[in-house]
Amino acid sequence: MEKPKTGQAFVFQKDIPAEDMPTWTKRRIAAHGKEMMLVENEFMTGDTAPEHEHYHAQITYVISGALEFTVDGETQILRQGDSVFIKPHAVHSAEAVEDSLIVDMFAPMREDFLD
Amino acid sequence: MEKPKTGQAFVFQKDIPAEDMPTWTKRRIAAHGKEMMLVENEFMTGDTAPEHEHYHAQITYVISGALEFTVDGETQILRQGDSVFIKPHAVHSAEAVEDSLIVDMFAPMREDFLD
Repeated sequence: MEKPKTGQAFVFQKDIPAEDMPTWTKRRIAAHGKEMMLVENEFMTGDTAPEHEHYHAQITYVISGALEFTVDGETQILRQGDSVFIKPHAVHSAEAVEDSLIVDMFAPMREDFLD
Repeated sequence: MEKPKTGQAFVFQKDIPAEDMPTWTKRRIAAHGKEMMLVENEFMTGDTAPEHEHYHAQITYVISGALEFTVDGETQILRQGDSVFIKPHAVHSAEAVEDSLIVDMFAPMREDFLD
C-alpha cells in the first residue's frame, strides 16, 4: 500500500497505509491536491498532538469520540460533528479524552507529509 | 441558530442550522475561514447532487453510507472512509445509494454559501 498520488481523484481507505505516529495512534493521508489535503487520524484516550503551528490553514472535524483542543490559548472539548478552524500560524494542540476518529484538512496541502 | 462566523475557531454542531436542500436532505455550514470551508451533508438513498462545477478545489469524505460519485466522467462508489479530490472546475455529481453522511471541504471557502 502507498499514499495516494497528489491530484488523484478517488481514494479508497482500504488502499492507503495507516502510519503509526509518535504521540497518537494512526494517520492516513487520504485525498489531496496541491490546493488542499485530507488526513484521517485515530487517537486513543490520552493520545496527544503537541503544541505546534504551520502556515497552512486547517479545519479539524470530529467523526467520533471527544478531544480537548487548544487554539490560540482557548481550550474547548470537541465531540461528534463539532469542528474547529485553525488560521495560518495559530498555535494549536489536542488531547483525546475518549478514543476518537477525526479528519484534518489543510489548505494548501501538507507537502511535508508526502516525503 | 445561525451559520458560524468566517474565521471563528470553535464550531459546535448543536449551534448551527441544518438547511433543507432542493435535491438532498440537509446541509450544515461548519468551521471555515477564507482559505477553506467545511460543510456537512446528509443524503437519503436516491438524493442527488446534480452535475456542476466551481473554481474551488473540493475534497469529499464519506462518514457513513455509500454514494456514487462521478468526477470528470469517471464513476465510483465511495463508502465509509473513502474520499475524492475534485480539482478546480472538474465537473462532478453524486447520488446516494444508501442513507449517507459526508463532509465536503472547499479551498478557498464557498463565499456563495454564506449569502
